[in-house]
Amino acid sequence: MEQFVAERLLRFSDCDPSGIAYFPSYLNLLNGVVEDFWEFLGFPLAQLIKGRGVGTPTVQLECRFERPALFGERLTFVLRVAKIGRSSLHLAHRITGADGVKWSARQVVVATSLREHRAIPWPDDLRASLQRHFPTPSVESA
Amino acid sequence: MEQFVAERLLRFSDCDPSGIAYFPSYLNLLNGVVEDFWEFLGFPLAQLIKGRGVGTPTVQLECRFERPALFGERLTFVLRVAKIGRSSLHLAHRITGADGVKWSARQVVVATSLREHRAIPWPDDLRASLQRHFPTPSVESA
Amino acid sequence: MEQFVAERLLRFSDCDPSGIAYFPSYLNLLNGVVEDFWEFLGFPLAQLIKGRGVGTPTVQLECRFERPALFGERLTFVLRVAKIGRSSLHLAHRITGADGVKWSARQVVVATSLREHRAIPWPDDLRASLQRHFPTPSVESA
Amino acid sequence: MEQFVAERLLRFSDCDPSGIAYFPSYLNLLNGVVEDFWEFLGFPLAQLIKGRGVGTPTVQLECRFERPALFGERLTFVLRVAKIGRSSLHLAHRITGADGVKWSARQVVVATSLREHRAIPWPDDLRASLQRHFPTPSVESA
Repeated sequence: MEQFVAERLLRFSDCDPSGIAYFPSYLNLLNGVVEDFWEFLGFPLAQLIKGRGVGTPTVQLECRFERPALFGERLTFVLRVAKIGRSSLHLAHRITGADGVKWSARQVVVATSLREHRAIPWPDDLRASLQRHFPTPSVESA
Repeated sequence: MEQFVAERLLRFSDCDPSGIAYFPSYLNLLNGVVEDFWEFLGFPLAQLIKGRGVGTPTVQLECRFERPALFGERLTFVLRVAKIGRSSLHLAHRITGADGVKWSARQVVVATSLREHRAIPWPDDLRASLQRHFPTPSVESA
Repeated sequence: MEQFVAERLLRFSDCDPSGIAYFPSYLNLLNGVVEDFWEFLGFPLAQLIKGRGVGTPTVQLECRFERPALFGERLTFVLRVAKIGRSSLHLAHRITGADGVKWSARQVVVATSLREHRAIPWPDDLRASLQRHFPTPSVESA
Repeated sequence: MEQFVAERLLRFSDCDPSGIAYFPSYLNLLNGVVEDFWEFLGFPLAQLIKGRGVGTPTVQLECRFERPALFGERLTFVLRVAKIGRSSLHLAHRITGADGVKWSARQVVVATSLREHRAIPWPDDLRASLQRHFPTPSVESA
């Protein structure tokens, strides 16, 4: 498997008075997709945070918004792993609707100790799961 | 005047279970600062949208999150105009707390017709206000 | 059928620095459930609003929060129709987790013309769908 | 002093595709006003939560939404203390715009131990501050 896919409805609450997606809501949706990705890997965020004291804050984010999405549209989020670093994880996102790509994003998250808010290496079991599910990080998006 | 400055409290609602700022909430705060910036220029967003049918969607965004911000911190948002294009506006943001730079962002917004969701030139009076308040777009952040 | 049921995960973004659900996020989730309820009835909100100019604002809301819900919990939202008025609709919500009822709510929404922000009777086809799916509004929750 | 007053701008992000305030955003604003109220009393929520392990969750909420508020409106939030209980605090809120009362709310919050998520008496110094600033809880709203 080379990508993680999630479907989302663009809800009333995600849109603004101009009738289209509010971009911070888009990023809230994206964060939920990444949350589902951790669960898919076998490491629900709630357990990482509460059980292990490991956070996964975003340290870099680049977005390109290409087409507006309207209230009621169904969106497909495709997440690819671009690079697995020692403490970092590079993700590439593509979000499409019926009329094509709506937006794309590059995101770097890092493993941190929530006690010290400092980067730590990915736990071994989590790294193993990442490597098993995403054996060949996509070069083009690296 | 070369920059627009706004103060914000990092509220309970902006933070997550790991105790630090939730990044989509950060972008919600940023959007509010840009809203205040339009008002400062004499063009409140509500009038632009409802009165003129002009939207200002974000088309590009790059963020670098350097230090976590904790619930209760006071943050200073500094907005600089990096480039005034025909339909676009390039903004550079720096957000600092007591311990230094928390994060920075580059944002490109474009003037659009809300009827056709298509780029249009900035209205003349709005462009004039931009140029009057920000005569020398900062080169280093262009 | 006497009730509409939806499942929700209590996400990272729904919780606050004290580690439990942030109540405005709870209401955001509730609003999404009601959105799904309209779709279930055959009247997606996007079509009601954009196609017919009909809004469904909330005019009354009463909530009782009984048990905290923690980040990562799965919640079941049960919606019952308590009363179908001329312009109003009375809904009773119960939200449960693994340990029992988390909270409950009574909500009154009204059909409005979005042009005049004024109450209007429910459109006939929408009322018919409501009555077909919820023939006997629950008395105890009326 | 018998009431606590705060001003708020109804922002782009607080409004929905029908152009009016999204009610969960209203409650987010209300929560921010209550946050300011704690700070006014000398007990910033961040210190209560992080320093003392005391939370102030909402256990009851009743809202009546009377008039829609539009994007760009300035709202005045008036908070009155209706009753100071052993562990509870009853608040009455009235929110007005240029055209009169927009909505009102009754809210009950309780002091809780964040370790056990259980009600505790208000800390003595906090109770003293409440009683000093709000010596005569308003009867009509009790």
